[in-house]
Amino acid sequence: MRIAELSQKTGVPVPTIKYYLREGLLPPGELTSPNQARYDDRHVQRLRLVRVLLDIGRLPIATIRDLLLALDQPDPDVHQVLGEALPSTVSARATNEPGMTEAARVRIDELVARRGWLVGQNAQARQAAAEVLAAFEQVGADVADLLEQYADVAERIAVHDLQFVGRAPDAEGKLHAAVVGSILGDSLLAALRRMAQEHESAKMFGIRGDDC
Amino acid sequence: MRIAELSQKTGVPVPTIKYYLREGLLPPGELTSPNQARYDDRHVQRLRLVRVLLDIGRLPIATIRDLLLALDQPDPDVHQVLGEALPSTVSARATNEPGMTEAARVRIDELVARRGWLVGQNAQARQAAAEVLAAFEQVGADVADLLEQYADVAERIAVHDLQFVGRAPDAEGKLHAAVVGSILGDSLLAALRRMAQEHESAKMFGIRGDDC
Repeated sequence: MRIAELSQKTGVPVPTIKYYLREGLLPPGELTSPNQARYDDRHVQRLRLVRVLLDIGRLPIATIRDLLLALDQPDPDVHQVLGEALPSTVSARATNEPGMTEAARVRIDELVARRGWLVGQNAQARQAAAEVLAAFEQVGADVADLLEQYADVAERIAVHDLQFVGRAPDAEGKLHAAVVGSILGDSLLAALRRMAQEHESAKMFGIRGDDC
Repeated sequence: MRIAELSQKTGVPVPTIKYYLREGLLPPGELTSPNQARYDDRHVQRLRLVRVLLDIGRLPIATIRDLLLALDQPDPDVHQVLGEALPSTVSARATNEPGMTEAARVRIDELVARRGWLVGQNAQARQAAAEVLAAFEQVGADVADLLEQYADVAERIAVHDLQFVGRAPDAEGKLHAAVVGSILGDSLLAALRRMAQEHESAKMFGIRGDDC
């Protein structure tokens, strides 16, 4: 198909597609003349993935490029991608007071050790968790209980997530599932959590008559 | 304290503080002369909260202003804030194919009804969940199982979250805890989830010797 049809099929404007081509988010089409290229269903799929990572994941272009590069490796190492590419989609940077993030990092490292989690020392998620924990403390919240409860829940989610990944038939499918599941999963979980909070809050604080 | 000291205490540059004052994210200080104002510890606290919502929550200025307005209500209705102000912090907008989001919305509504969740028909999180569900399908992922598993997990997290909110002594403290817990909680959960995924992945796909 021509670029106009690719645009029509995906709802992505032609200039935006050209931008993704220049940025390496979309592989070039097959040249049919010096000024024209042909695209296929793999471009449609890739374009949808890029949009989802941008729209829902709100990931920076550079992070998406890294994830796509990992997806395009022949014979990919699933664990390596999960361990190296995906953590860059969780980052937190807060203007915490000096020393607070370091102290929080020690608490996160202790949590990881206590639970026997196999997580690289330099995993970005360790530092992200420490930044968020320090931010909680920065605004005066005591989250000791919450941290353990969330870690319990995270273990349970991760089992579901890896089952979801494991259902894909080959390494390429597993990676795709890992990327999509991790990024979209954060947003799905946040939306479901907000609904469940509203429900719990209605039970705890009472509901307005006009709303449910 | 003068604005310079407020800046020093919080690490936020003076021009940024002035910007927050103009945008209504920070209440004005007490004027001590036509060109000088005095700030107190409440400004320090508020400034830290604003930074956390910006840095970790990555919320738009307008959303933060709404949340702070709700926090500043005398005799606040905790459930109303949870139900109205907070959902605006979960939004998703994807370039899904026509009809896909509508179909996904029906599935989310069915999930809410099946579980007996007390969630307003117009709750933003319903639509956000539908957008994410449609995005999953857009990239070819079957998430029927995952949706139920995540909903189970969301119910559990919400109970922890409302316990966290309930521990605050008064309505103002509860609101503060609800805002902080919801926003920072999303990020903390995402970071812990990523670590737990790395752990599960290491168990499932094997680990590299140099990393743990």
